[in-house]
This record gives sequence, structure tokens and C-alpha cells, in this order.
Amino acid sequence: MKEVLEYLETNHDSMLEELKEYLRIPSISTGTKNTKDIAKAADFTQKQLKKIGLKNVKIHKTKGHPIVYGEWLGAKGAPTVLVYGHYDVQPVEPLNLWNTDPFDPTVKDGKLFARGSADDKGQVFIHFKVLEAFMKTQGKMPVNVKVVVEGEEEIGSPNLVTFLNKNKKMLACDTILISDTHMEGEKKPTITYGLRGLTYLQVDVTSAKGDLHSGTFGGSIANPIQVLSEILVKCKDPKTSKVKIPGFYKDVVPLKKKEREELAKMPHSDQKFAKSIGAKKTFGEAGYTTVERTGSRPTFEVNGIWGGHTGDGVKTVLPAEAHAKVSMRLVANQDPDTIARLFTDYVKSIAPDTVKINVTLYDNNGNASLSPIDSPGMVAAQAAVKKVYKKAPFLTREGGSIPIVADMQKALKAAPVLLGFGLPDDNLHAPNEKMNIVQITNGYKTVTHWFEEYAKATAK
Amino acid sequence: MKEVLEYLETNHDSMLEELKEYLRIPSISTGTKNTKDIAKAADFTQKQLKKIGLKNVKIHKTKGHPIVYGEWLGAKGAPTVLVYGHYDVQPVEPLNLWNTDPFDPTVKDGKLFARGSADDKGQVFIHFKVLEAFMKTQGKMPVNVKVVVEGEEEIGSPNLVTFLNKNKKMLACDTILISDTHMEGEKKPTITYGLRGLTYLQVDVTSAKGDLHSGTFGGSIANPIQVLSEILVKCKDPKTSKVKIPGFYKDVVPLKKKEREELAKMPHSDQKFAKSIGAKKTFGEAGYTTVERTGSRPTFEVNGIWGGHTGDGVKTVLPAEAHAKVSMRLVANQDPDTIARLFTDYVKSIAPDTVKINVTLYDNNGNASLSPIDSPGMVAAQAAVKKVYKKAPFLTREGGSIPIVADMQKALKAAPVLLGFGLPDDNLHAPNEKMNIVQITNGYKTVTHWFEEYAKATAK
Repeated sequence: MKEVLEYLETNHDSMLEELKEYLRIPSISTGTKNTKDIAKAADFTQKQLKKIGLKNVKIHKTKGHPIVYGEWLGAKGAPTVLVYGHYDVQPVEPLNLWNTDPFDPTVKDGKLFARGSADDKGQVFIHFKVLEAFMKTQGKMPVNVKVVVEGEEEIGSPNLVTFLNKNKKMLACDTILISDTHMEGEKKPTITYGLRGLTYLQVDVTSAKGDLHSGTFGGSIANPIQVLSEILVKCKDPKTSKVKIPGFYKDVVPLKKKEREELAKMPHSDQKFAKSIGAKKTFGEAGYTTVERTGSRPTFEVNGIWGGHTGDGVKTVLPAEAHAKVSMRLVANQDPDTIARLFTDYVKSIAPDTVKINVTLYDNNGNASLSPIDSPGMVAAQAAVKKVYKKAPFLTREGGSIPIVADMQKALKAAPVLLGFGLPDDNLHAPNEKMNIVQITNGYKTVTHWFEEYAKATAK
Repeated sequence: MKEVLEYLETNHDSMLEELKEYLRIPSISTGTKNTKDIAKAADFTQKQLKKIGLKNVKIHKTKGHPIVYGEWLGAKGAPTVLVYGHYDVQPVEPLNLWNTDPFDPTVKDGKLFARGSADDKGQVFIHFKVLEAFMKTQGKMPVNVKVVVEGEEEIGSPNLVTFLNKNKKMLACDTILISDTHMEGEKKPTITYGLRGLTYLQVDVTSAKGDLHSGTFGGSIANPIQVLSEILVKCKDPKTSKVKIPGFYKDVVPLKKKEREELAKMPHSDQKFAKSIGAKKTFGEAGYTTVERTGSRPTFEVNGIWGGHTGDGVKTVLPAEAHAKVSMRLVANQDPDTIARLFTDYVKSIAPDTVKINVTLYDNNGNASLSPIDSPGMVAAQAAVKKVYKKAPFLTREGGSIPIVADMQKALKAAPVLLGFGLPDDNLHAPNEKMNIVQITNGYKTVTHWFEEYAKATAK
């Protein structure tokens, strides 16, 4: 143990340089522009797994971006931990809002700025280095370890489920360990026991075969932007923020009284929260707190909208088309396919007969997940946190989606543990993404302790 | 007369080549990318005026794009006609919807395809050639002529009023002749006696200092796209299409019974109209016909909208900003500044306190205009049309705005005549703009007759 932690401390600087190399690869998974960079990031990941000393290290091809796998099964009779992470990152637009190049990792005031620093290269890298430290200093790990690093998490992991189902034997495990979530603060360790699901769709409204002169035609046919606005307003109540799609809340398991009491313990101030993101005030579903709204309640959000003249100056055009990308965050027991169908049917039912409506489901539906908090992995996580932070972690539900958590839980019949080291102000999916260096070093320590505690808890 | 018409017929082909040269100049007035092309188009215009044989031909600088002027004042005792047109054109996006390069004029099936072919280079060019024909064959014109060609019509003519007021003496005239409108069909001559005004604004909604992760933050603060949609829906009733801005209709002069009867004579079929633009059906203000809606009633239209992720694939972002460009077409007696103020006040009054709202007025307000149909110029126009088309023209009000018509009418105290040769399917402000060649040749004849008729009607 001591030697493992010393190894991580001694090699801190060179490991940080390795991580920067990882972050320099613009492995954006959405669209097709970065296919070569995806391959480069997969290759880098493979080299990391080989450096640890894992066996059967291989880049597995999929219909999309490849999955990198490696394993060490030398702990006879001990349980098996599957470490999951992803090497792909979000797009970086709008570029002008970044203070530094998103793919030129820059350390400033103890923070490492780069796309992927927190989501998720920086976090999965913690596992690479802890496993490497065990192998270099002990020549073995406390338990059996399998590592799966994919390249499509940011687009909904469309090919991982197929990979899981095809390789159930290879991937068989007792616990799934994931670092892709965040803590409440540098000194506020948090373990996430729930994640939201997701369904993501696009709505296209067309009124004519081409853009028209707004003078000659204005007032004579439906404006597709106006129609799209009407549709969006009919999806969410402006006052209560309740989603108005019929049946949307039907399968939601209501928050238990006990659970609401636990969530109320979370350190949170609406005023500080709003200030931290530059918002005038919080706003969300009537009858729930902000902590409940972001983690335990489903939402409807427009992620993007466009139509007509969006460039400089004026153009007196009556647009022929308008488009919106919308997504719904879901909670346990809501089925993404059902919700996508309810949305599609609803939009088609409320659209006026003056326009053509097209609703397309993106191939990235994800189920919500809830993890049992008394599994050996979760017990070990709480113990490891206490050793490093000298206090018990908050137990919370997080608003983001790692759809694959629910899928892995189902396919591998193993309990997930979400031991995340991000922070709320990491700017995930936004300009100026960063990871605090102290989160990485405390991450090294916590994950090291976790393996020890997990080995202890599961020793026969 | 005969010689003038013969000159125009004999030189048809070489004149078409000259027009193509004019159309090859991408003189887009919006934004700042085409400043050099604007200068090139002004220079081309100047050469045309010199070729006619006009005196005092000069490119007049303004704070924006220059104005080209020339005059011939050799008809002692005769009235003065001021010919107005514009050499600037609309932007060409989306380029992928053009069948040919917008700045590579292409004749196909008797149609000349190019940006500016109908709006307005192709139409003002008719006047250049008719005046040239008079001078080359007669050595004089039937009346005094002044020509003003500006380069900012498509951005609302922000500097022409200053030019008019500074040069009232130079520009003094009895009639203003403009070809920048359209006829109902190749064999359906139409004279426009009314034009709509315009006010154009931008609404910016901001909820946070930067884009946020829709998982971590979704449900906790206002979504600016959702708020913008709510605002747009509150501006126009989805069912009646009535503009809901308080006071919007207050100053509108109601359509007279007699006027509605005249407009009802216009050749129009809602079904054919919708089919021609690829729309499922017409839609507009309750209680009015399509002809009335497009020419005689004010409208509210969204010209463009954007916010969040508008690129390929999915991005689970909660946008920090949303933007819309909106414009209102106005009718006689509505003051653009007043309407802009009513809109701004209304938007600010209905916006929720969860976001920051910014409303910006573009500098291109324009007044609506109505022309007396019994002025000598209008009488001459009706007579000229009858000579060429063997039938009386329809008298109508057009939906587009040439804000400067109202301004010129006011500044120069002269009656405007709108003798347009475009057609309804010319794709103004849209991809594949075109002008039918027969409209140009009939335009030559009609304008030639107009000068003769006008000289006759005003002879003492």
C-alpha cells in the first residue's frame, strides 16, 4: 500500500505529462471529422493498458469507434473488478469562449484546462496509473481486474451493448468501477448512487420548398420557426416547468421521504449555485428543490435550435425550415424508447396541418440507473473515502447520464460503483473544461484504498 | 419612338451580355465582406450612366455604400422624372440550394438565373438601356431625367435619406419612377400603388455565463431557447395569426370596401399559390384573403433563430444563449419607430426574471407608402401597359418594402410610380433568383412608351 502511494507521488509529474499527451488528441466522437483522432486515442489507451502490464490487451473494432480492452486475472479466488471509462470527448464549439486551446492542456492555478480533462480522460487515467503502481511495486493486484475503455460515450454508446453481449464471458465481473461523476467540492467527497437516463431527438419543421421573401410572402404561409416555438412551448409549461407530454411522468418512481431527507443534507445554496454559473436565479419543476430537480427528476431541454438567417446583419427572409435538437433526462423506471415514442406522437398530434413535421430519434437512448448502496464495492468506496478525506461521503443521485451503467448492470449482472473525482465547476460539455490537480492526486489515493478495501471486504 | 424600340431590339444580345457583367459582381450589401464588390458595382453603374450620355455623372460617397447619380436636363419646360434603383443584392446562403452559381448568370429556358437578376440590377438596367436608346437615336429624351442608383436598399437604405435631404435641389423632380416590384404573370401586367414598411430587430436571451452540461444542470435553470420560444409565441397567436403586441394595429388604416373589391379581382388561387412555393396550404391573419394578407396587412415574422448545438450529431448541452431576428412588415400610417418601441417594451414586459433580455433595433426602419393612382405618372403607366400588353393593368399593393419610396415621396414631394417587371416566382432573397428574358424585353417597350405617354400627359 505504502509503496503504491509512494510510486504515485514520485511519478506525479511524468504522469501529468502522459495525461497531457492523452488530452492533446481531439477525439471528438460526434460527427465524422475526427475519425483519425479517435483511432489515435484508442491507440494511446492501448499503450497505457500494456504499460500497466495487462494481458489480452486489444483494440476491439465495432460498427462505430473501437473499444479498448485489457485484463489481469492473477488473483486466484479473488473477485473481479471491471473498470470502465471513455476516451472520446465532446465537441468544443463555441471556440471563441475558450481561454486556451481546448486541445493544448494548460495548467493554471492548480487546474488542468483541456477538453476531456474531467470527462473522462483525466478520470479514467487515474485508474491506469493506480493499476500501474500496483503492478510496478507489487507485481500484482489485490483482486482480478478488467479494463474497458470506449470511444462513444458522448454519443450514447451505440455499440457497447453489442460488445457486452458478445463478450459476456470475457467481461464477467463482480463489480463495475467507474470514475466519470463528480464530488460536491474538493473537501466534500460524494458517491453517486443514481444516474439519469436520456433520449435525444431532432424535430424538423418545413413549410415550403425554399426560403421566401418575407415581404412578398410574409403573412401568407406558416412560419416554421413560429410553429417550432409553439411546439416547444407546448412541451414544457412556462410557469411550472412541468413536461406536458402526456404520460411523461407515468412510470417515474416518486422520491421517498427518507431519500428527500438525505438529499436535503447535500451542501447546496440556490443563490451560490446560480452565481457560480452566472444565472440570475434558479428555475425548475415546481415542488422540488434544485438538488432534486437535477438528480432525481426527469427534464425536457432544448439543446439547439436553428432556422432562417443566422449570420450578420439583416436578411428579410421567410425561412422554409426550422430545426431543434431536444433531449429528455430520465429517471429510474422511465423507458427511453417509450418516452421517445410519446414525444414523437405528441409533437405530431399538436403540429398544425400547415407544415411538414419530421421527428428523428438519435441512436443514443440511455436508461437511468440506481445502485444498491450496500454492495461490497459501495461499502469499500465509503471506507476508502473516509481514509483519504477523513469524513463520510455524501450519497447522491447525479443528473448526468452514463447510459452504459444501466446497460452494464443488466448485461453483466454486477453492481456499479460510481467513484467520481470531478467538481461541479469543471465545465463539462462546455468551454474551458478543467480538472483540479488535487482531484487527480486524491483520486490516486482513493482508488488505491478502494482496491485494498474491496479486497478486504470480499476476502473469504 | 419606332427608332428607339428598334435600337432596343437590334442590340438585345449585346445588352444582355452587359447585364450579365453587372450580375457577375457579388455586390452584397449586408455585412462587410463585399465592400470591394460594392465599389465595383458602383463603378459599373457610373459607366452605364456615362454611356447613356447623362451629365454630372458621379459616385457620391456616403457613410455606407456610395450612391451613383447622373442627369439630363435638356428638355426645357418639360417635367423631370427621377429614376431610382439599387445595385446592391441580398446574401446568397444557403448556397447548396442554388442550381447554378449565383454570380455566374445563366440563361435557361428563357430565364436569366443570378442573384440580383430581378432584385434589382435586371430591372434598373431596363431604364439604363431605354434612356440610352433615346439618346442614341433621338439625341434627346422626351422629358428631363435624373437617375439615382444606391447600394444599400437591401439593408434598409440607411444613408439615402441624408443624401436626399442634402441634395434636394439637385434631385428636385415631378415624378419618381421605380422598377423594383413585380407583375402577377408574364401576361398579367400589374402596377403597385402601395408598399409595406419594415422594422427589423434582434432579441438575445442569456441565462448563464456559458453553455452548461444538460445532465448536471438540466432542470435547474431557465433554458434560453425555451424562453425565446415562449416570447415568440406571445407575439403571434397560433390560431388567428394576429400580432399580440399591444397597440400593434392601433394606427393601421382599415382596408376600404372598394379597395377589397379591387384586390379581389387580382388573379389568385390559394391552392396554386401554395403549390407554387411547395407549401401544404396558406396560413395567415384571420378575416383576410391571401392577397390582403401579403399586401395590405402588417405581419410579424421570425427571420432567423439560433442557439445551442446546431451542428452534426448530438451534444447534451444546456445553452447559455438564444437569439432571434424578427421583422414586422407595416402598412401605411404605422410608424416603424413606434412599432419597434412597442415590440421592445412588450418583450421586456413578458420576459421572465430568470434571464437577461436584450432587444436591438437594426438601422433599417422603413415607412410604408401609398401612391395616388391618378397622378400623371400613374396615368402614363396605365396607358403604356395597355399599348404593350393590350390590356389594363391590375392595381395592387405589394408586400415587400422599398422604404425609400415613402422617404423620397416625403423629401422630394413627388409622386412615385412603381412599374415593376419581376414575376412572383423570381425567388427574390432566396436561392435561384431569376428574371424572365421576356420581362426584360417587354420592360424595354413599356418604359419607352411610359416616357412618351408621360411627356404627352404633361405637355402644356
